[in-house]
Amino acid sequence: MAQPPAHKFVNEIGPGEVVNGVYVVREPILRSTTRGDLYIAMFLCDRTGQLNGRMWQASEVVYKSLPKPGFVHVQGRSELYQNNLQIVVNNIAAIDPSKVNVEDYLARTTKDCGQMLKEVKETVGTIRHPQLAALCKAFLEDKALMQNFCSAPGGMKMHHDCIGGLLEHTHNMLNVAQAVLPLYPQVQADLVLAGIFLHDMGKTEELAYDMAFSYTDSGQLIGHISKSLLMIHRKADALRAQGVQINPDILDSIGHIILAHHGAYEFGSPKLPATAEAFMVYYIDDLDAKMNQVTAAIEGELSESNWTAWQNTLQTRLYRKRLE
Amino acid sequence: MAQPPAHKFVNEIGPGEVVNGVYVVREPILRSTTRGDLYIAMFLCDRTGQLNGRMWQASEVVYKSLPKPGFVHVQGRSELYQNNLQIVVNNIAAIDPSKVNVEDYLARTTKDCGQMLKEVKETVGTIRHPQLAALCKAFLEDKALMQNFCSAPGGMKMHHDCIGGLLEHTHNMLNVAQAVLPLYPQVQADLVLAGIFLHDMGKTEELAYDMAFSYTDSGQLIGHISKSLLMIHRKADALRAQGVQINPDILDSIGHIILAHHGAYEFGSPKLPATAEAFMVYYIDDLDAKMNQVTAAIEGELSESNWTAWQNTLQTRLYRKRLE
Amino acid sequence: MAQPPAHKFVNEIGPGEVVNGVYVVREPILRSTTRGDLYIAMFLCDRTGQLNGRMWQASEVVYKSLPKPGFVHVQGRSELYQNNLQIVVNNIAAIDPSKVNVEDYLARTTKDCGQMLKEVKETVGTIRHPQLAALCKAFLEDKALMQNFCSAPGGMKMHHDCIGGLLEHTHNMLNVAQAVLPLYPQVQADLVLAGIFLHDMGKTEELAYDMAFSYTDSGQLIGHISKSLLMIHRKADALRAQGVQINPDILDSIGHIILAHHGAYEFGSPKLPATAEAFMVYYIDDLDAKMNQVTAAIEGELSESNWTAWQNTLQTRLYRKRLE
Amino acid sequence: MAQPPAHKFVNEIGPGEVVNGVYVVREPILRSTTRGDLYIAMFLCDRTGQLNGRMWQASEVVYKSLPKPGFVHVQGRSELYQNNLQIVVNNIAAIDPSKVNVEDYLARTTKDCGQMLKEVKETVGTIRHPQLAALCKAFLEDKALMQNFCSAPGGMKMHHDCIGGLLEHTHNMLNVAQAVLPLYPQVQADLVLAGIFLHDMGKTEELAYDMAFSYTDSGQLIGHISKSLLMIHRKADALRAQGVQINPDILDSIGHIILAHHGAYEFGSPKLPATAEAFMVYYIDDLDAKMNQVTAAIEGELSESNWTAWQNTLQTRLYRKRLE
Amino acid sequence: MAQPPAHKFVNEIGPGEVVNGVYVVREPILRSTTRGDLYIAMFLCDRTGQLNGRMWQASEVVYKSLPKPGFVHVQGRSELYQNNLQIVVNNIAAIDPSKVNVEDYLARTTKDCGQMLKEVKETVGTIRHPQLAALCKAFLEDKALMQNFCSAPGGMKMHHDCIGGLLEHTHNMLNVAQAVLPLYPQVQADLVLAGIFLHDMGKTEELAYDMAFSYTDSGQLIGHISKSLLMIHRKADALRAQGVQINPDILDSIGHIILAHHGAYEFGSPKLPATAEAFMVYYIDDLDAKMNQVTAAIEGELSESNWTAWQNTLQTRLYRKRLE
Amino acid sequence: MAQPPAHKFVNEIGPGEVVNGVYVVREPILRSTTRGDLYIAMFLCDRTGQLNGRMWQASEVVYKSLPKPGFVHVQGRSELYQNNLQIVVNNIAAIDPSKVNVEDYLARTTKDCGQMLKEVKETVGTIRHPQLAALCKAFLEDKALMQNFCSAPGGMKMHHDCIGGLLEHTHNMLNVAQAVLPLYPQVQADLVLAGIFLHDMGKTEELAYDMAFSYTDSGQLIGHISKSLLMIHRKADALRAQGVQINPDILDSIGHIILAHHGAYEFGSPKLPATAEAFMVYYIDDLDAKMNQVTAAIEGELSESNWTAWQNTLQTRLYRKRLE
Repeated sequence: MAQPPAHKFVNEIGPGEVVNGVYVVREPILRSTTRGDLYIAMFLCDRTGQLNGRMWQASEVVYKSLPKPGFVHVQGRSELYQNNLQIVVNNIAAIDPSKVNVEDYLARTTKDCGQMLKEVKETVGTIRHPQLAALCKAFLEDKALMQNFCSAPGGMKMHHDCIGGLLEHTHNMLNVAQAVLPLYPQVQADLVLAGIFLHDMGKTEELAYDMAFSYTDSGQLIGHISKSLLMIHRKADALRAQGVQINPDILDSIGHIILAHHGAYEFGSPKLPATAEAFMVYYIDDLDAKMNQVTAAIEGELSESNWTAWQNTLQTRLYRKRLE
Repeated sequence: MAQPPAHKFVNEIGPGEVVNGVYVVREPILRSTTRGDLYIAMFLCDRTGQLNGRMWQASEVVYKSLPKPGFVHVQGRSELYQNNLQIVVNNIAAIDPSKVNVEDYLARTTKDCGQMLKEVKETVGTIRHPQLAALCKAFLEDKALMQNFCSAPGGMKMHHDCIGGLLEHTHNMLNVAQAVLPLYPQVQADLVLAGIFLHDMGKTEELAYDMAFSYTDSGQLIGHISKSLLMIHRKADALRAQGVQINPDILDSIGHIILAHHGAYEFGSPKLPATAEAFMVYYIDDLDAKMNQVTAAIEGELSESNWTAWQNTLQTRLYRKRLE
Repeated sequence: MAQPPAHKFVNEIGPGEVVNGVYVVREPILRSTTRGDLYIAMFLCDRTGQLNGRMWQASEVVYKSLPKPGFVHVQGRSELYQNNLQIVVNNIAAIDPSKVNVEDYLARTTKDCGQMLKEVKETVGTIRHPQLAALCKAFLEDKALMQNFCSAPGGMKMHHDCIGGLLEHTHNMLNVAQAVLPLYPQVQADLVLAGIFLHDMGKTEELAYDMAFSYTDSGQLIGHISKSLLMIHRKADALRAQGVQINPDILDSIGHIILAHHGAYEFGSPKLPATAEAFMVYYIDDLDAKMNQVTAAIEGELSESNWTAWQNTLQTRLYRKRLE
Repeated sequence: MAQPPAHKFVNEIGPGEVVNGVYVVREPILRSTTRGDLYIAMFLCDRTGQLNGRMWQASEVVYKSLPKPGFVHVQGRSELYQNNLQIVVNNIAAIDPSKVNVEDYLARTTKDCGQMLKEVKETVGTIRHPQLAALCKAFLEDKALMQNFCSAPGGMKMHHDCIGGLLEHTHNMLNVAQAVLPLYPQVQADLVLAGIFLHDMGKTEELAYDMAFSYTDSGQLIGHISKSLLMIHRKADALRAQGVQINPDILDSIGHIILAHHGAYEFGSPKLPATAEAFMVYYIDDLDAKMNQVTAAIEGELSESNWTAWQNTLQTRLYRKRLE
Repeated sequence: MAQPPAHKFVNEIGPGEVVNGVYVVREPILRSTTRGDLYIAMFLCDRTGQLNGRMWQASEVVYKSLPKPGFVHVQGRSELYQNNLQIVVNNIAAIDPSKVNVEDYLARTTKDCGQMLKEVKETVGTIRHPQLAALCKAFLEDKALMQNFCSAPGGMKMHHDCIGGLLEHTHNMLNVAQAVLPLYPQVQADLVLAGIFLHDMGKTEELAYDMAFSYTDSGQLIGHISKSLLMIHRKADALRAQGVQINPDILDSIGHIILAHHGAYEFGSPKLPATAEAFMVYYIDDLDAKMNQVTAAIEGELSESNWTAWQNTLQTRLYRKRLE
Repeated sequence: MAQPPAHKFVNEIGPGEVVNGVYVVREPILRSTTRGDLYIAMFLCDRTGQLNGRMWQASEVVYKSLPKPGFVHVQGRSELYQNNLQIVVNNIAAIDPSKVNVEDYLARTTKDCGQMLKEVKETVGTIRHPQLAALCKAFLEDKALMQNFCSAPGGMKMHHDCIGGLLEHTHNMLNVAQAVLPLYPQVQADLVLAGIFLHDMGKTEELAYDMAFSYTDSGQLIGHISKSLLMIHRKADALRAQGVQINPDILDSIGHIILAHHGAYEFGSPKLPATAEAFMVYYIDDLDAKMNQVTAAIEGELSESNWTAWQNTLQTRLYRKRLE
C-alpha cells in the first residue's frame, strides 16, 4: 500500500466516498457468517469521532495483525446507515505510530500547556503551610507524573475531553479559587489550593489517552477519586521515608476534599462535603466543568438554530443567541 | 408596669429564671380548658430564637389587646421542658415599638449596608448594554424598593437570615461574579451582573421582616422567583410608558436567569438553566449561600467538639478543626 | 415545477417511492463534504409526522431560498433506513402558503371550536365574584388573544396536540368542574372556574403553531406557567388603568392556581398546591390530560394486538380489549 | 369507683386537671424500675386523639386486668410535657363496653349511612354488564360484609378516618364518576362503577375499628389492595358454585383496577394503570381523598392564622382565607 | 415450497445472505403504501433473538394465513441496517408445529429438569409444619401445574429466561436456603422453604412460553406476585373442601413472603418485608437472580474485551478477566 | 466520695430515682446562665443507652476535671421529661478506668471471639491463590490490627453494634460464603473469601470503641470503605519491601470488592459492583447485616405486641409472631 494522504477527519466523511487514510482501530472482533465466511467488526476513530467499520472478506491472519487498539492504514468506502456512516474496509494494515500526526487522533487543548503548568506551579507555590507545600512539591517534582498530568484529558465525554484537558481544568479552577478566596476569609486558602491541585490527579491512571480516550481496567474498577486518595498516601509514604512527615490529619483533610469533590453520593463521592474547603472545591469544580460543557455545546452546534440539540446530562437544550 | 430592663436574650434564659422584658409575640391563640378557664398559647421571640409562652389565667380582653405579631412587655418565669424552655406568663402588655431597640429582635448583618449598596451600584453601573442598564437603573432609582432591598433578609433559615441579608448576599455574589467573569470570556457579563442584581428581588415581597421573619401570604402563594419575574415586567412596563423600550428578548433572557437560578425543579425553579449566564448565576448563588451556611454553622457551634451538630440540609455534620 | 398533486401524508410513504408534494421544511442546514460538495440536511413534516430529508447536490442559492420553516414543494424519492424513512430530495422550492391546505400540515381538533368557545363563555359567565368575573371578561374580550386561544394546541406531544387542542382541553376541564363542584361544596367554584379558564393561557405564547408545532424562544426560556401568570397581571394592570380594581389577593389566589397546576416540582410547578381550589384544578387538569392521552393511544394503535406499544410517559403498555 | 361522669375529650384536657372518665387503653406495658417498683405505660385514647398514660404504683394484677385494647375507667390528673399532655393514673379499671357511648371513642361520618348505602346500591344497580352486575350483587347481598362496609373507616390517618368513612368515600367516588363519565364516552362506565364499588373492599379486613382504629395483623401483612383482589375471586368462586360464571378476563379487568388504583409503585400498587378505566378510578380516588384531606385540615385548624399547620403528606401549609 | 433445511439461527445470519428456514412469526401487521400496495411488517424469532421482517408484495390472503404468533417457513434474504439485520421476505407460509424442533425456538435450561424437580420435592419434603407441608404437597400433586412449573421461564429477559428457568431458579434458591438456614437459627426454616417453593408460582400463568416468551394478557394485568397469592388461596380452599384446614395466619405468613419478595415498592412488591423469613427469601431471590444475570452476561459476551457491553439494569459494564 | 455501688444501667433508671454510679461522660459543655451561674450539659452513657445530664451549680474547675469522654462517678437524681429521662447531677468526678467493669459500658458479642477468630483463620487459610493468600496472611499476622479486628463493632447503630461485632459479622459472612460458593462454580471463591475478610477492615480505624462507640475524626472524614482500600495498599507496599509482590490487578480486584460492597452510590459505594465476586460479597454483607438487624429488633422488642416499633431504616414494623 502507498503512503497515506493528508488525513480526512471522521466528521468530514460524507456518504459514498472513497476512504484512504490512517485511523485508530478499536475493539476489532473476528466473526464468522453461517456460510463460514470470516468478517471483522471494528471501530475506526480519530479525534473528531468514531465510525463502525466492517471488513467482509477477512482472515484470521489479518485479524491477528491488527493492533488492539492502534493506528491502521485503511482503504475502503463509506456507506450511510441512518445518520451514522459505516466504513466498508477493503484493505487494512497496522502502521508505525511514528509516522502519524498524533494530534489528528486525539483532540488537544487550544491553550499553551507549558504556560499553564508554569502558572499552576506559581499558584501552588503560594501555599504557606509547610506540610501541604511539601506534599504538593512532591507531586510537582515527579516528572513522569507531571508529564501525564499535562497530557491526560479532564474526562471521557462531559467536559475538557481533550489532551491537556486535566491541566486546563485544574489550571482554571486554581484561577477561580484565587479570585474567589479573598471574598471568603474564613476558608483556609492553602487547603483549597492543594485540594484543587490534587483532586483529579487519579485521572492520569483512570484514563488511557495514547491513541484514543478510554478507561483503563484499573480506572474502571477503582475510579479516579479513590486513585487520587491512594496517590497522596503513596507520596506521603515516600516523603516519610525521606524524613518529611505529613501528619495524618493533614492527609485526612486533603483526602476528604478529594473524596467529597463530586458533591453527592449519586455522582460517586463516598463522602459528602463536611468542611468549608471541601464545599468550595466541589463548587469550583462543578462551575468550571459546567461552564466548559455549556460553552463547548453552544460553540460546537452546527445548525443555525437558536438552540443546541438536547443535552442529556443537562436535561435541556441550550439557548445560543446573544444579546444584540 | 415599670419600664422594661435591659433585654435578656431568648438564648440566654436558663431554667427557673424570672422573666421581665420585651419580646415579640407571634401567633397568640386563645383557648379554653374544659373547666372554662381561658389561656393563651403564643410564641415569644427575639433575634436569637423563640420560646413557647403560656398565660394560664387569661381573658379575652388580654387576648384582644395583643398585637399579632408585635412587641410586648412580658413578666413571668421560665420552665424547662426537655431541651426547650417555656415561659409561663403572668403579665403581658403591648408596648410602643418606638420604645424598643429593634435590633434586639431581628438579627442584622454585621456589614455596612450603605457601603454595600454603594458598591452594588458601582458594579451594576458597569453594565454597558443600554437596555439592561436602563432596567437596572429603574430598580436602583426606586427608593422605596431599595430601602426594602437593604433591609430584607436573604432567607428564612438557611443562609443570610438577617436584616440586610439580601443585600449582603447580592453584594457578595456580584463580587464573586466580577472576580470570575474574566476567566470565562464567552459568558455575557452584562447579563450575569444584571441577573445577580435582580434574581432575588422578589424576596422583598415574599418575606415580612418588620418584627420577626415570616412569609407574607402573597409570598407563600407565589414565591420570590415568580415575584422577581413580575417585578422586572412591571418595571419594563413603567419604562415603556416613559418611552424607554426594553425588548421582549431582553426580558426573556433576564427572566430565564431568575426562573432558573435554583438550578433544579425540586428546589422550585420552573425552568432548568439553558444559557451560560443562567448556569453561572445559579452556581454563584449556590456557592455563596452554602459558604454562608457552612461558615455560620461552624462559627455558631457552641460545643467544643471538632464537629458541629448534624446539618439536615447538608446531610452531614461539619468538621471545624483548622490546620495547625 | 408543476403544481403539487393531492397530498401524500408522511405516515403513508413507503420505502422506495417517488415523492412529489408539499411539506413543511424545518431546520435546514447547509453542509459541505470533504470533496467540497454542498448538501442540505432538513426535516420534512406534515401533521402526521416528520422525516429526515437530504439534498445531495445542493447550492447556497437553493439553501437561501428555503423558508426556515415554511412550505416547500419537494421532488425526490424515499429510502428506508431501519424503521425510519429518509427522503432524498432532487428539487425543492418554496411555495406560497395560500396555495396549501394548512390542515394537511397541522392536526386539528375534531370538535367544533365555535361551539366550544361559546360554551366556555357561558361557563365562565356563571362566575359571580365581581373581580374574578371582570378579569375573565377582559380575556374573553381580547379578540386577538381569543383567536390564539382557539388555535393553540394543548401541548407538544403528550395530549391535545392539535390545532384547537388548548380550547378543547380547557372546555372539557370546565365541563368536568361543573359536574364535580356540587359534590365539594366547601370549594370556591368561582376560583376553580376562573383558574381553569386561565391556567394554560400562556400556551398561546409558549407554542408556535402556524406551520408545525414548536416552542417559541420565549416559550422555552420562560414556560407557559410563568407566562400565564404574567398575562393575568398584565390584564389586571390594563383594567386598573380603566378604573377596574383587581385586588392583589385575588391575583395571588388565581396566580397560585396557575403556578401549582402541574402538582409537583418535578413537572415544573414552582409552588405546590396549597388551596382546595388549586388541588381541584390540578386534579381535573391531570385527569383530562391523561384520559386524552390514554384514549388517543388506544385508538391510534395500528396493530391488532390487545396491547398498545410501550407508553414511555406512562411506563406501561395499554390494554385495548373491551368487555364482551 | 363511682360511675364515670360525662366524657371529657382528650383534646379538651388542659394541664394540671383532674381526670376522671372512660378512655380506650392501648398497648399497655408493665415495666419495673431499678428499685423493683412496677409501673404501667399505656396510651389513653378517644376519638379526638391519644395521650401517654403512666401509672407509677402499679401491680401485675392491675396490668393483667386491663383489656388490650379496651375501655377503662381512669382516675388521675394531667401533666404538661412540652406541647403534649401526659396522664398520671391513680386508678384504672376495665369497664363494660355496653356502658359507654362508643361514638365518643370513634369518630363517625356526619352523613347518613343508610341513605348513602341506598344510593350506592342504586348506582351499582345501573351496571348493565351481566357478569359485573352479578359480581357486585354478590357483594351487596353479603349482609355481614355490607355491615362492615358501612362501618369501616376510609383510612388510618390520611382521609375519611372515621366510622363510615369507607362508605362515604366510596359513595362520593361513585357520584363523581356518574358526573364525569358522560364526558368520556370511550371509557367503559360499567367497569369504572364496579371498580369503584370494590376497590377498597379489603379495608374491611385490613383495619380494626371496634374501639380504636388500627391495622389487623392480616391487614398489615397483606394489605387492603391484595385483600380486595382475593375477595372478588372468593365471591366469583362462590358464584361459580351456584352456577353463575364470571369469566377470567372480567376478573382480570376488575382486578387490574383494584391493583392499580394507588397509581404508582411507591404507594403500594403492584401494577401501574394500563386501562382507561384503571386511570379513571385512580384519579377519582385520589381527587376525593385529597379533597377530603385538604378541607378537613382547613376546617380543623384551631389557630386564627390564614394558614394551617404544615401538612407533611402534602409538603405545604394550606391557605384558608376565602375570597371576600 | 420444499422442506426447510437445518435451522440457521437468528444470531448467525450475516448481511446479504439467503434466508430459507422456519422461524416464529410475531405481531404481523398488514399495512398499505400510498400506492395501494400492501406489505406485512413482522418479527421473525428463534431462541437466539428476533429480527424485523418485511414482505413488500403482500396480500390480505397471505396475512390472514399467518399464525399470530406461530411457526412459519420463510424464504427471502437478509439486509443490514446499522447493527440490526432485517429480513426481506419473498415467501412465507405457516408450518405444522409437529414438524419443528421446538428447542431451536425456545432456549432451555442446560440442567436436568427431572433431577431438579426430584430434589425440589425432597427439600420441600423436609418441611415439618403440618399445614405448610399440606399446602406444598397440594401443589406438588397438581400434575398439570407441576408440568408448567418445569417448563416456565424464570423471567422475560433479566435472568433464567429459558424453558425450565423457573424450576432452575427455584431449585437453586432452595439449595442456597438449605446451606444458609443453619447459620440463622432464629429464622423459621419451614416458612422460608415453603416461601421459596411458592414465591414465583404465578409465573406459570403470567408468562406464555409455547413458541416464544411473552406475557399473557392476564399476566400483564395482574402480575405473577398477585397470581401466586391467588394460587395459594385457591389451593387452601380446595384443601378445606377436602377437610384439611390451612389457618388464615399461615396463609398470611406465606402470602406476605410472596408479596414482599421483590423487596421494594419500585420493583412491584405491594408490601415491604416485615418478617425475618420474608427478608431471607427476598435476599436469596435477588442473589440467585443477579448471579445468574451476571455470569450469563460474562459468559455470553462475544468480544475479546475484558469488559462486557453496558448492562443497563446493573448500570455498569462487567469485568470478565479472571485471576491468573 | 465513697466507692460506687453495683452498676445501675441507663435503661433501668426510672423517673425520680437517686442516681449514684459510674457512667461514661460525653461531650460535656460549660455554659453560663444570664445571672452568671455556670452549668454543665453532658451525656451520661453506658452500653444500654445515654441520657442528658445537667449540673446546675457547676464551676470551671469541675468542668476542666472531666474526661472528654471518660468514666465518671455521678451522684444526683433522675427527672422525667416526656419519654426521656434527664439526670440532675449534684457531684461528678473522674474515676480510674481500671476500677470499672468495661463491659457494663460497651455491649459485647455473646459469641466466643477466640473461637471465631480461629475459624476465620481456617477459612481464610483455604485461599489457594498465592498472592491473595499472602495478602490475607499479612493482615492475620499483624497482631495489633487483629486485636482491633476482634474488638471493633460492626457498626454504630444498624447492626452488630457491639464489641466483637466486626469479627462476628465477618465470621458469619465467611460461613455463608462457604455454604453458598459451591452452588455458583463460576465465581472465584478465593476472591470472595479474601474480599469478605478485608471488606470492613477500615472500621477498626473509622470507629472508636474504648468507652463508647463513636466515629473518629479520621473515620468521619474518610470512611471505612476508603480506609480499607488504603490498608490493603499499605500492606501490599510492606510485602513488596519484603520481596513479596502483589500484582496491581490483584489489588484492583480486591479493591473493587471493597469499594462496591455497599452496592449502591447512595449507600456510599463510589463504584457499583462490576464483577461476579463483588456482587456476591455485596449480597452476603447485606443479607447478614439485615438478618442481624431484623432478629435483634424482634428479640429486643419490650412490648407484648405482635409487632415491633417502627423500624425507620426498614420502613416497616416487624412481625414477631411465630408459627404455632
